[in-house]
Amino acid sequence: MSTEIYLDNSATTRQYDEVTSLMAEVASRNYGNPSSLHTKGIEAERLVTGARETIAEILGVRPAEIYFTSGGTESNNLAILGYLDANPRKGKHVITTRIEHPSVLEVYKYLESRGYRVDYLDVDADGRIIPEQLEKAIKPDTALISVILVNNETGTIQDMGLISSIRDAVNPQAVIHSDAVQAFGKMKLSPAKSGIGLMSFSSHKIHGPKGIGALYVSKGVRISPLFYGGGQESLIRSGTENVPGIAGFGLAAKITASGIEENLRRAAHLKQMLVRGLAASDIEHRVNSPEDALPHIINISFRNVMAEVLLHHLEQRGIFVSTGSACSSHKKSRSHVLAAMKVEPALIDGALRFSLSHMNTEDDIRLTLEALKDIIPVIDISRNRKSGRKQ
Amino acid sequence: MSTEIYLDNSATTRQYDEVTSLMAEVASRNYGNPSSLHTKGIEAERLVTGARETIAEILGVRPAEIYFTSGGTESNNLAILGYLDANPRKGKHVITTRIEHPSVLEVYKYLESRGYRVDYLDVDADGRIIPEQLEKAIKPDTALISVILVNNETGTIQDMGLISSIRDAVNPQAVIHSDAVQAFGKMKLSPAKSGIGLMSFSSHKIHGPKGIGALYVSKGVRISPLFYGGGQESLIRSGTENVPGIAGFGLAAKITASGIEENLRRAAHLKQMLVRGLAASDIEHRVNSPEDALPHIINISFRNVMAEVLLHHLEQRGIFVSTGSACSSHKKSRSHVLAAMKVEPALIDGALRFSLSHMNTEDDIRLTLEALKDIIPVIDISRNRKSGRKQ
Repeated sequence: MSTEIYLDNSATTRQYDEVTSLMAEVASRNYGNPSSLHTKGIEAERLVTGARETIAEILGVRPAEIYFTSGGTESNNLAILGYLDANPRKGKHVITTRIEHPSVLEVYKYLESRGYRVDYLDVDADGRIIPEQLEKAIKPDTALISVILVNNETGTIQDMGLISSIRDAVNPQAVIHSDAVQAFGKMKLSPAKSGIGLMSFSSHKIHGPKGIGALYVSKGVRISPLFYGGGQESLIRSGTENVPGIAGFGLAAKITASGIEENLRRAAHLKQMLVRGLAASDIEHRVNSPEDALPHIINISFRNVMAEVLLHHLEQRGIFVSTGSACSSHKKSRSHVLAAMKVEPALIDGALRFSLSHMNTEDDIRLTLEALKDIIPVIDISRNRKSGRKQ
Repeated sequence: MSTEIYLDNSATTRQYDEVTSLMAEVASRNYGNPSSLHTKGIEAERLVTGARETIAEILGVRPAEIYFTSGGTESNNLAILGYLDANPRKGKHVITTRIEHPSVLEVYKYLESRGYRVDYLDVDADGRIIPEQLEKAIKPDTALISVILVNNETGTIQDMGLISSIRDAVNPQAVIHSDAVQAFGKMKLSPAKSGIGLMSFSSHKIHGPKGIGALYVSKGVRISPLFYGGGQESLIRSGTENVPGIAGFGLAAKITASGIEENLRRAAHLKQMLVRGLAASDIEHRVNSPEDALPHIINISFRNVMAEVLLHHLEQRGIFVSTGSACSSHKKSRSHVLAAMKVEPALIDGALRFSLSHMNTEDDIRLTLEALKDIIPVIDISRNRKSGRKQ
């Protein structure tokens, strides 16, 4: 089968052709080093400035509050480690949730080894934190609170306004960091209005180039760099700027942001098609993503199915999906997100993530439904067990 | 003037067209996340593996000893901070030179603030470290020694074999790190044979993409990551791999490495043209790069000339050069490299760096010489002073 049905857009996306063209042009014409004093340097710097302004405008923040990094992982680390390093007197207590991306969760685990007290917030069956628990967790020495805006496995959206107002009431000194990698370009974000001090973004999740990301740092918030050198990005991120990558990210952000509402409607429609199609079938399943999740991410557990087996059967038909998230698929352990939502272990083992982009079509969903109906009866463990073909 | 004479190749280079094409293809066809379990992930991972093998082969090392990073600055930081973090018992004494790139020098300055004793080695008039001084500097608790292989401002090559043998004699436990950003692809490197534990590389200095680099970590040497997440690059460098960037770096390395000898001859010839052309003129100058430097980098001081003024006059004619290095040009202080070589301050202020690539031609040098002969008399401070036009 030669058609490709790519439903793994939360892992990474196909780069826009316009972005590819722009990057090729920048790499061969505007190839200067922004630090160079001559015009080739100045034109490169202008491209960086332009992309910074584009992203700032989308977020409703100042260009000086946007720092370019090598991606979402670096942004999350820079936010957390950079903030704590620059503000040692704000306290040794930090809070995060049980459903963060590894690039936040692993940093908090590291912080435990560095003498920080870490509270991991639980979530309810929909994957949302419990406001009362957050309220109790915030202490006078709470320096930082990291909450993922849209969860990468389920699409669950956290109410950042509520989280921010709880913080304001209990300890206004605590800074809120939010990993918005899955949210950026898919819903309207206003970090400044939401009272968020640090927000992380990635380019390759919105059809932009890999190897580039950004961090929003609110004006009053001070951070230290993760590494040292020529002092680029206002001393916060040294290293020759990835000019084609930054320009490509800027263009991808512009294209994506211009279609947010239309794309949201479209994704909601495709999600509904998939969910209703399954409901009308006799496939035993459970939709793990709540109804009001970001519709681009649909997490579904299939009973009596090993997700990885189903994934490989689907790819035989050119349909690409994910078990849990790509970024933790090296580890063969069960999804920590579904576990935190108290999904039963057998259903976690049968969970697939279908993640959409505006490049997906109704046909993609129709063919996926057909494939699921064909494949699942064949790989159903209980049926095989009953018929004695497998032990 | 529409022709472009780019003599700032040590700041950054024009990307190979073949690399641009490959990256475009990867970004639009092999856009998977290497962590994904399906074929789109596997084909992406294969590209990463291929590039790793290419670079390892060029260096005569094992693929598992090569880690991809976001560039030279990150590689240098990962080498230094990562090694010291992973080996706290090796001692609190470290050694570097006065002529390192800022991405090494600034890290050692940071180490001073973290309780490390730092020795900065002097250099002679050619920019070479003094072996006796190194021998005396190495202590039983010396954990790390960072020496830049080819200096980015002058092209001076350090004798890494000699440095390594001194280390072996005094304290074999001390690990040697070398910033080989300006050397890679321009001369044959054998880190394993030279007794080097850590070696840093950058892609955009060899006509590869910006935003990608590598670190060689010798098998027995342990390092900690700079940041945390999905555990990519054998847990050392988390974050979705920049697959097009890595593939582009691999191809650029392959192309560059295949022409090292031819390119060295060519650069030596062009350097000779420039140096002899100036010697035959009545321009008062001093060649700061030693004769046996890497010929791609030619540092020349012009007497009674402000380098930045000369730079802007040259760019009017489409000739792009650098004062000192691009990466420190944000800082308006005098070159720390020429200062360490004891070049007199007035000559440091008149220093330009002409840096070559195999894309440069004899015509480039001829036109540059003509331009220098035209411009320098006009901007000569002493002449203007004498004629009373300037004070």
